[in-house]
Amino acid sequence: MRAVDIIIKKRDGHELSREEITFFIEGYTRGEIPDYQAAAWAMAVLLRGMTPRETTDLTLAMAASGETLDLSGVVPIAVDKHSTGGVGDKTSLVVEPVVAACGLAVGKMSGCGLGFTGGTLDKLESIPGYRTNLSTAEFLRQLKETGLVLTGQSADLAPADGKLYALRDVTGTVQSIPLIASSIMSKKIAAGAQAIVLDVKVGLGAFMQTLPEARQLAELMVQIANLAGRKAVALLSDMNQPLGQAVGNALEVREAIDTLHGNGPEDFEEHCLIVAAQMLLLGGKAKTPEAARTMAEQALADGRAWQKFRTLVSAQGGDLTYIDEPERLPRAAIIEPLPAPRDGYLARIHARMVGETAMILGAGRAKKGDPIDHAVGIEVHHKVGDYLSADEPVFTIHAADAERLAEARRRLSTALAWSDDPVEPLPLFYGQPIR
Amino acid sequence: MRAVDIIIKKRDGHELSREEITFFIEGYTRGEIPDYQAAAWAMAVLLRGMTPRETTDLTLAMAASGETLDLSGVVPIAVDKHSTGGVGDKTSLVVEPVVAACGLAVGKMSGCGLGFTGGTLDKLESIPGYRTNLSTAEFLRQLKETGLVLTGQSADLAPADGKLYALRDVTGTVQSIPLIASSIMSKKIAAGAQAIVLDVKVGLGAFMQTLPEARQLAELMVQIANLAGRKAVALLSDMNQPLGQAVGNALEVREAIDTLHGNGPEDFEEHCLIVAAQMLLLGGKAKTPEAARTMAEQALADGRAWQKFRTLVSAQGGDLTYIDEPERLPRAAIIEPLPAPRDGYLARIHARMVGETAMILGAGRAKKGDPIDHAVGIEVHHKVGDYLSADEPVFTIHAADAERLAEARRRLSTALAWSDDPVEPLPLFYGQPIR
Repeated sequence: MRAVDIIIKKRDGHELSREEITFFIEGYTRGEIPDYQAAAWAMAVLLRGMTPRETTDLTLAMAASGETLDLSGVVPIAVDKHSTGGVGDKTSLVVEPVVAACGLAVGKMSGCGLGFTGGTLDKLESIPGYRTNLSTAEFLRQLKETGLVLTGQSADLAPADGKLYALRDVTGTVQSIPLIASSIMSKKIAAGAQAIVLDVKVGLGAFMQTLPEARQLAELMVQIANLAGRKAVALLSDMNQPLGQAVGNALEVREAIDTLHGNGPEDFEEHCLIVAAQMLLLGGKAKTPEAARTMAEQALADGRAWQKFRTLVSAQGGDLTYIDEPERLPRAAIIEPLPAPRDGYLARIHARMVGETAMILGAGRAKKGDPIDHAVGIEVHHKVGDYLSADEPVFTIHAADAERLAEARRRLSTALAWSDDPVEPLPLFYGQPIR
Repeated sequence: MRAVDIIIKKRDGHELSREEITFFIEGYTRGEIPDYQAAAWAMAVLLRGMTPRETTDLTLAMAASGETLDLSGVVPIAVDKHSTGGVGDKTSLVVEPVVAACGLAVGKMSGCGLGFTGGTLDKLESIPGYRTNLSTAEFLRQLKETGLVLTGQSADLAPADGKLYALRDVTGTVQSIPLIASSIMSKKIAAGAQAIVLDVKVGLGAFMQTLPEARQLAELMVQIANLAGRKAVALLSDMNQPLGQAVGNALEVREAIDTLHGNGPEDFEEHCLIVAAQMLLLGGKAKTPEAARTMAEQALADGRAWQKFRTLVSAQGGDLTYIDEPERLPRAAIIEPLPAPRDGYLARIHARMVGETAMILGAGRAKKGDPIDHAVGIEVHHKVGDYLSADEPVFTIHAADAERLAEARRRLSTALAWSDDPVEPLPLFYGQPIR
C-alpha cells in the first residue's frame, strides 16, 4: 500500500477502505508518511468528503494512535459532554457538578482555549491552586473517590489527531465536517467515553455558522458514536450572542458560582439544566426527560451541586476561600461600562466579535502558548431583543490598561446592531436532540 | 499576505491574483513556504482549477524563479518545440536538423526520460562521446555557430517547477491540466523560447488519454504563450500505438538516421515533416503551410538535414563513425522476434504497455537516477489496421538476458488485440493545429 495511491483515490472521489485509512493514520503518526502527503490528503478529504463509515474508521484509527483509557472498572458508565466551543461557554463548570451530584460520575479532560473561544481549563485556573495537570492515576483515583474530575489531557490521547490538527491549521483544511467530527470523537473515545452529550454551537460565534452545517456535524458525530458502539445525543445550541453574561476567565467562574447558588443568568441556567438532563438520561440515571430535568433542578436548588463543585476544587488543590468569596478572584485594573449609543431594540450582539475583543483584552490566546490574563473580560448585560434607553450600559469592560480599554470600546461598538422595531429573542436551542 | 489564506482562497474556488501567485511561488522557491502548504495548495488547484490568467501568472512566476536565457542576441527568433512525451518519440532527432537545415536556428534543452516514455537525451547518449551537459556559454556559442543544439538543461531554469513537480509526484497532484501546462511552459519561457510548437500526445501511451483533455491542455498552453507575449501552435498527435517502429535508445537513433536518409518508417517521416513545417511557419521562414512543407521535404531529400545532424553530433563531441555506420551503435545480446499468435487484423498495439516493456528491458527509468541500457528495446513491425498471418513477426525484442526476454514476451503479448474484421488505421494527428 502506498500513501500516494490513497491520496489519489480520495482525490478522485472514491471511498477509502478501513485498511487504507488505518495505514495512512498509523504511518502519519509514526512519521513514515510526511506532512506534505497528509496535507494533500486532508485537502482531498475536505473537497471530496467522506462517508460516515470512512469517518468512523478515521476516528477509531486516531483514537488508537496513542493511549486509551478504560473507565469501566472505575465507573458504571463513563458519560462525557463536549461543546464545540463558543463565547461565554462556562457550561462544564455547572453541568458537571449538577450531574455528579445526581450520582452520575463524570471525569472530563478539557483543552485550552484558542482564538475567540475560551477553554474550560483557563477558567478553572483563575482559582489559585487549582491543578489541571492530574496524572492518569490521579484522574482515576479522584473519579472513583469523588465522582467528579475536570482536568487537562493527562494521557497521550489520540496523538494522530493532535498532529493532524496542527497541520490542518496551516494548510486551510480545518473547515471539513468529517475532519472536525473525527477530531472531536477520537479524543472522546480515547478518553474512555461510553456515552457522550454533544453541544454543537451554531451561529456568528461558532465554528459552524449555519444551521444546516451544524446539523450535519451533529448527525455525523452521533453516527460515528453509534458505529463505534457508543451512545450519543447532540444538541444544537445558539451561539449568535454570548451565552450568559460573563466572557473572560474569572468573570465566568464567578457566573458559574452564582448559577450554582441559583443566582445565575436565566439563559445560562436553562442551558445547563437542559444539557445536564440529557447526560442523566444518557447515563441511565433517569428514565424520562421530565424526571431527568427535575433531578437536575433539585441538585441545583438544594445546594448539592454547589457542594460537589467545592469538593472538586478542593480535590484538585484549589483554594476554597476564592470560591466561597468570589470577590477575591482576580479583578482587572479598569472596570468601565459601555453605554448604549441610542434608544432601541438590540438586534445583534455579535458573539465572535465579543470573543475576539475578550481575547485582545488578554482573556484568550491568539496562538498556542500565549499567556492569559484571568482578570480581564467583558460582562454582557443584555440579550438580543431587549429594549434599551440611550446611556444604559450594554457591556462592562474589564481591562488591564487604558489602551486596551479603548480598543475594546471601539470593537464592541461594532458588535452591536439596533432596531427601532421589536426584535425576536434568540432561541437557546434549535430543534429536538439528535440521536 | 499569508500562505494559508491563499490556500483557502483557492480551496473555496476563487481566482488568485498575480500578487498572490507570485508570493506563493517565490516563498516556496526560497523554502519559506513549506512543502505541506504547497501540497495542500496543489490539491486545491487540481480540484478547483485555474483560469488561463492564473495559469499564465503561475507559469511566469515559475519561469522567473531561476535563471532565464535571452537568445535575442544570438538568433533572430528563438523557436522551440515540445512533445508531452510518448513511446517511440524520437521526433526531435529528425525535426530539429530539418528545421536548422532550412536556416531556422534551434537550441533545445531536453529532459531525461521517466517511466514509460523515453527522453531525447538518453537517445543521444547512445552515440559514444555525445555530450548532453553543455554549459550555458557552450550552448550559446554552438547555437550561434552551427544553428543547432540538443543538450540537457544547463542553466538553473525554473527551479520552482522542479521542486513543485517532485512534490506533485508524491502527493497525487500530477494530473492537473493547469499544473501540467504551467510546468511545461515555464521551462520553455525560462529557456528563452519566443515561438513554440507544442506536440500534445493523446491516447493509451500518453499522459492525456482522451481527446477532450488533450485539447484542453493544448488550448491552455497556447493561451499561456499568447498571454505571456509568445507565439505558439499546438498539434494533437496520436499516441495509442508507438510512433515509428523503434522503441529504445540506440534503436531510435538508428531509425532517426534512416529517416534522415529518406528510409524511415512512413508514419514517423510524415509526423516529422508536419511538425517541422509548423516550426518553419511559426519562425517566419515560410509564408504558407504548403511552402513550409516543401521546404522541409527538400531539406530531407537533398541530404542537408542529415549533414546538419552530423554537424550537431560532431559539435557536441559525438563519434561520427557510429552514426555513419549505425550498425556500430550498441546492440543487445539477444535479438528475437515475437510472432503473431494468429491470423487477423491488428486492432491495438498498446503504446503504454510497449513503453513499460521497454523500460523493464532496461531502456528507461522507473525512477530518477536509474541506469539506462542503450542497446535494448523493441522493434514494432506493424501498425494498427495491418493484416498479419500467424507466425509473422509483430515485434523484435532486443534484450540483455533470457529472463527479461521472457518477461518482455509475456507483456508484449497482452499489448496486442486482434480482429477478424478489417480495422481502421489510426490517424497521425487529430484535427487542425490549435493557435
